[in-house]
Amino acid sequence: MKGLKGALMFAQSGGPTSVINASAAGVFLEGLQTPEITAVYGAAHGIRGILNEEFFDISKEDVKELELLKNTPSSALGSVRYKLKDASVDDTDYKRLLEVFKKYNVRYFFYNGGNDSMDTCNKISKYMAKSGYEMNVIGVPKTIDNDLFGTDHCPGFASAAKYIATTIMEINLDAKVYDTGLICVVEVMGRNAGWLTASASLANYKGLGADLIYLPEVAFDVDKFIADVKDVCAKNNNKCIAVVSEGIKDKNGTLICEALGKAGARDSFGHAQLGGVASTLAGIVKEATGVKVRPIELSLMQRCAAHCASKTDIEETFGAGRQAVKSAVAGETDKMVCYARVEGESTYKCEYKLLPLELAANTEKTVPLEWITNNGTGISEEFIKYALPLIQGECDMLKEDGLPRFAKLKKVLVKKD
Amino acid sequence: MKGLKGALMFAQSGGPTSVINASAAGVFLEGLQTPEITAVYGAAHGIRGILNEEFFDISKEDVKELELLKNTPSSALGSVRYKLKDASVDDTDYKRLLEVFKKYNVRYFFYNGGNDSMDTCNKISKYMAKSGYEMNVIGVPKTIDNDLFGTDHCPGFASAAKYIATTIMEINLDAKVYDTGLICVVEVMGRNAGWLTASASLANYKGLGADLIYLPEVAFDVDKFIADVKDVCAKNNNKCIAVVSEGIKDKNGTLICEALGKAGARDSFGHAQLGGVASTLAGIVKEATGVKVRPIELSLMQRCAAHCASKTDIEETFGAGRQAVKSAVAGETDKMVCYARVEGESTYKCEYKLLPLELAANTEKTVPLEWITNNGTGISEEFIKYALPLIQGECDMLKEDGLPRFAKLKKVLVKKD
Repeated sequence: MKGLKGALMFAQSGGPTSVINASAAGVFLEGLQTPEITAVYGAAHGIRGILNEEFFDISKEDVKELELLKNTPSSALGSVRYKLKDASVDDTDYKRLLEVFKKYNVRYFFYNGGNDSMDTCNKISKYMAKSGYEMNVIGVPKTIDNDLFGTDHCPGFASAAKYIATTIMEINLDAKVYDTGLICVVEVMGRNAGWLTASASLANYKGLGADLIYLPEVAFDVDKFIADVKDVCAKNNNKCIAVVSEGIKDKNGTLICEALGKAGARDSFGHAQLGGVASTLAGIVKEATGVKVRPIELSLMQRCAAHCASKTDIEETFGAGRQAVKSAVAGETDKMVCYARVEGESTYKCEYKLLPLELAANTEKTVPLEWITNNGTGISEEFIKYALPLIQGECDMLKEDGLPRFAKLKKVLVKKD
Repeated sequence: MKGLKGALMFAQSGGPTSVINASAAGVFLEGLQTPEITAVYGAAHGIRGILNEEFFDISKEDVKELELLKNTPSSALGSVRYKLKDASVDDTDYKRLLEVFKKYNVRYFFYNGGNDSMDTCNKISKYMAKSGYEMNVIGVPKTIDNDLFGTDHCPGFASAAKYIATTIMEINLDAKVYDTGLICVVEVMGRNAGWLTASASLANYKGLGADLIYLPEVAFDVDKFIADVKDVCAKNNNKCIAVVSEGIKDKNGTLICEALGKAGARDSFGHAQLGGVASTLAGIVKEATGVKVRPIELSLMQRCAAHCASKTDIEETFGAGRQAVKSAVAGETDKMVCYARVEGESTYKCEYKLLPLELAANTEKTVPLEWITNNGTGISEEFIKYALPLIQGECDMLKEDGLPRFAKLKKVLVKKD
């Protein structure tokens, strides 16, 4: 709906990224200068902040600090993993959201997250439309996993990829420093999609990469893994770098950590808590080869190392936030902001497009199987062509005392009465 | 001995650092322009390269690539962990070294390493002097552990400290993103000295640090650790970041990983292979608290993350290499290059000094106990004053395709005949 006048509500959800706050900066700075927008709110801890009527008045923040959000990792407003029920089953939460939106005259709602969050965003959008409440709803994507449908890539992926490739190059140099053998098993995030794990191949492109790369797209066989490592060791003086996705599964679709008896907890979406597969595989491969093995888990660092973020990613992610506001004010609703790579250009160029939320929700985009080579241990040149433009440019992070100067928000809560 | 004319031999030893090659660059670039030095050699894999007569002719390298060594992590020549016997017990290796030095008229020998390497350097120096072979021997320190005696700090420490502080700040933001509890147990390197672990407190100084910091200088008690974590959780909505040294030991001096039944292998110096204590403690604390726990091991990254190196460290480390050559040519021998902080200056200033090798060898400098506060879980302001000047300045790493452009050496082997 065009010409809506009212408040803007922005909320962050799901696992954070190095650059997720760049979208917040984009939404806030664009919102604050848009005449149709009467107030700019940021919800504390995603949808829960709205349900609890806990959100911040962004007009109270210094613009300089909002600018610093571009280089501040993790969700500055706080995130949440909260699954809305289907409104047809239980509409309690939806009624409450509508109540809060009405109370504060929220006419623009932006939800920043991955698959699950786009599903939440879609449900809210549909419910508000059905209720006849005039509100424009736009999803702002983010995920290091790069698994959202309908977008060339996802905000946050490139910075994680740049960190992973840089780190694999550095580990490559370190791991071969002795004249004795060493096997490194490096674990990278990615539940079902191997985009991040594949990013290790960017280090290969620079000649300092991994010998073996295992994506969750291909069934993982422990015996084949051992044989692969032994092969590399035999050719390479007992030196081998193997990169594995945390989400590798056996031929039955069982996570390797679970299949090997290392089951973790599950979150409110039913996802298993991952991590630890490098350590488990390291133990197995050490026993099988007798060579020294070092498991390395890139852990939270791969999603929060803002000091190594891609400038291209920061700028695109900031722009995605601004685009969301512009689109909503122009009358768009029930959509997600997408990236479209401009074809036929000699240099990389990316444009924003809009995709219906229901198409974006709950569909996972995985790495094309034809990009996985060498009997499931390598990545083709197509991936390099795809990913390399995204990691270009260095972040120009402000430093203070030789350390990052991250944004400091006042977080002035809006009064409930 | 002054006025010596002959070849220069440089070798790297022990675990590498982000900036160890800056010393190599300093030695090589200074050596190549010093009239007294007739040839510049770099030994492959430390002392073993000399014993095997495998070393590179550095004059064959491009100066541009030698300059790039300043930002290239890990030992570019290859390292080694090789323990020389006492010459009084078995002088086979020493005789061989003398033979090689004579054959190539090596009159300047520089050994780059930590405690064990300074011991090796000292033994070689003493043997050559006793044999009447005229050679000037200078040790060039390096160690992220910062545990060498007689020097204000060690080349490589500051870059690792900067990486650790930056990463703890980033983890701090990430770990508190949800409104549910999370305990992070972060493991940092440091066998007996807690300098690196203490560096986490630089993040505290910027307001985004750790709640608990455990150094190997203080006996570690698992029950107290659990109680400490529970205390923090109770005050802090079940959120806690604990940083532990890989080298924490119980009151009997037994490594916690060994005391808890996670014994690793031992290297040729008899040191236990460390790593994994965060994971072990995470399991224990999860059981004790029921809160979600994430173990994070900073692993090789803390010693190879050249992309996050301290400019101050790079420049000082490069200068240490140059100083070693200058001192040796001026007639100094049997010494290690040291850093001396100039007292009474308003801004940080550091000078080079020389220390007899036998004083540097095998003495470990640990963190002063009076700098450890809060019942063994905190670090005092004295440490901040000490460490903060060292991490200043950003590395100006050359990038290519958005990734580090590390030095590419030709490594032309010197012919054996």
